[in-house]
Amino acid sequence: MVNETVKLASGYHMPLVGFGLWKVDQKTTAEIVYAAIQTGYRLFDGAYDYANEKEAGEGIRRAIKDGLVTRDEVFITTKLWNNYHKKEHVAQMGIFQNETWGLGYIDLYLMHFPVALDYIEPSTLQYPAWWMDAAHETVSVAKVPIMETWQAMEKLVDEGLVRSIGVSNFDTQLLYDVISYARHPISSLQIEHHPYLVQPQLIAMAQEEGIVVTGYSTFGPQSFLELPPAFRKRAADVPMLFDTEVVKKLAQKYARSPGQILLRWATQRCRGIAIIPKSNNKDRLKQNLEVNDFSLTDQELEEISQLDRGLRFNDPGFYLQNRPIRIFS
Amino acid sequence: MVNETVKLASGYHMPLVGFGLWKVDQKTTAEIVYAAIQTGYRLFDGAYDYANEKEAGEGIRRAIKDGLVTRDEVFITTKLWNNYHKKEHVAQMGIFQNETWGLGYIDLYLMHFPVALDYIEPSTLQYPAWWMDAAHETVSVAKVPIMETWQAMEKLVDEGLVRSIGVSNFDTQLLYDVISYARHPISSLQIEHHPYLVQPQLIAMAQEEGIVVTGYSTFGPQSFLELPPAFRKRAADVPMLFDTEVVKKLAQKYARSPGQILLRWATQRCRGIAIIPKSNNKDRLKQNLEVNDFSLTDQELEEISQLDRGLRFNDPGFYLQNRPIRIFS
Repeated sequence: MVNETVKLASGYHMPLVGFGLWKVDQKTTAEIVYAAIQTGYRLFDGAYDYANEKEAGEGIRRAIKDGLVTRDEVFITTKLWNNYHKKEHVAQMGIFQNETWGLGYIDLYLMHFPVALDYIEPSTLQYPAWWMDAAHETVSVAKVPIMETWQAMEKLVDEGLVRSIGVSNFDTQLLYDVISYARHPISSLQIEHHPYLVQPQLIAMAQEEGIVVTGYSTFGPQSFLELPPAFRKRAADVPMLFDTEVVKKLAQKYARSPGQILLRWATQRCRGIAIIPKSNNKDRLKQNLEVNDFSLTDQELEEISQLDRGLRFNDPGFYLQNRPIRIFS
Repeated sequence: MVNETVKLASGYHMPLVGFGLWKVDQKTTAEIVYAAIQTGYRLFDGAYDYANEKEAGEGIRRAIKDGLVTRDEVFITTKLWNNYHKKEHVAQMGIFQNETWGLGYIDLYLMHFPVALDYIEPSTLQYPAWWMDAAHETVSVAKVPIMETWQAMEKLVDEGLVRSIGVSNFDTQLLYDVISYARHPISSLQIEHHPYLVQPQLIAMAQEEGIVVTGYSTFGPQSFLELPPAFRKRAADVPMLFDTEVVKKLAQKYARSPGQILLRWATQRCRGIAIIPKSNNKDRLKQNLEVNDFSLTDQELEEISQLDRGLRFNDPGFYLQNRPIRIFS
């Protein structure tokens, strides 16, 4: 159960439960990733934007060296950041990020957001406000067609740097469009997904088109409270999902943590949404991985889904004040 | 006021209030269009899909011949249907639709939906279920990139068949993408727009990018009750906007019809949304045109907007049962 996988359109298999590297401190990343492998994690979900790819790679390489896993047993997802959508930058970042991980190839490479921003010299980017320049004052949209970026990503597949490719934060219209010209299939779509943002149409469309959906921020507002004020404002205004009656009731019924109820809701609904929870706590690491050995009833799944309020936390139309990027309408 | 116009990104001016030809019976179209011109209408919003372009053109040509208007004073919008997204079909349809109207050029040509369907020989299309083949059984998505279609539309501008181009039913992600490669600007975005579907993010984004927004179905569910059962189901389940307390209250306050309140809400909110109401009744024709000579307060605009429930009636993910096209997620 713990090592359950799903077959991607590329033909490769991806674990259904992974470890998300967003907001994992660079200093502790290598250690936590190593511990996660010990706990049983085989998928690691990173991004250039998370600023800890190098350390995650170190943790995995150490685990391989110590004989805990082989390279084949581990699955690495990482993402292309918005400032690098031009074909020459995709080519550079593919090489650079692959070398940063140091694992020979990237299993899954995703376009992080469906919007290109002007090139910014990486050393002047300031995490986590990478939508803006170093002065944090403005955001410049660049005129780079998604087709150019996607085709450059396909070249990375041709060159063997990357095995599967996909997208993140895309909606259905743009998915249909990419499908119309894709030479390599969209293997995965990664989206914000929790009971406050249920998105049945988007998930149904992706699955009909053979795209495996991965949900991020399964705990909803919880994931955003660690961010700077502008980013966390919307999350601070709603009840934590852990505290909702339905989640508390089901946690009691199944003798599980509220977090496990939420994760199981995700992996069980629709045809199964892949999840990538993060934890800096070793007990919770294990809890988050062991969510597929109990099942909610259809009615319980639906009861949780009824919490839907179309509420998106990761919305640059909301938190980028000076130059909002309205990619979710 | 009646002839108020807005400048499009192309440089041409478009009237803010027009006459919508959707669901206008072919048999009476020429006569109604002629009467609409007499009443003061200068914008006519058609589409290949509405199956009355020829008759609308006849009505306009008669009005020109009778000296009611000149060609320059009239503004024709029409749309490219989903089955004709391939570049060769765009070229054919541009010529064909322009000849059908018979007015020398098309003022504004819109891509009707952001999805390409397999080519269907026009004579076998059955209105209004043109998403499906003649047997009404299935819908086949075609692999035609939006870029190919847009660039073919740009050629129609180069050739002088069309003065301005735009899109309909697009969301922000795809708009950003088209903007990234557009050689001629997106002059207008036409979307479903009424108090049950307020879409502030989409409208804000379009306006920030210099795209004039036109709203269709301003009366909401009302517009869909005339359609076959599958299309009208969702509309039949909600109160008519005419019957809502806030609209009735404001109609009384301003001594206007509920319809005029709804139309004014549209033309006044944001920086002004262009509208294209339709009526087969001559009194209402006049009423619908004369909506800009009174103003709602900001609070009243907001009160109407509070009716929002994200409820979309023109949704092929809902009414196409055998092969839903989920373009709105």
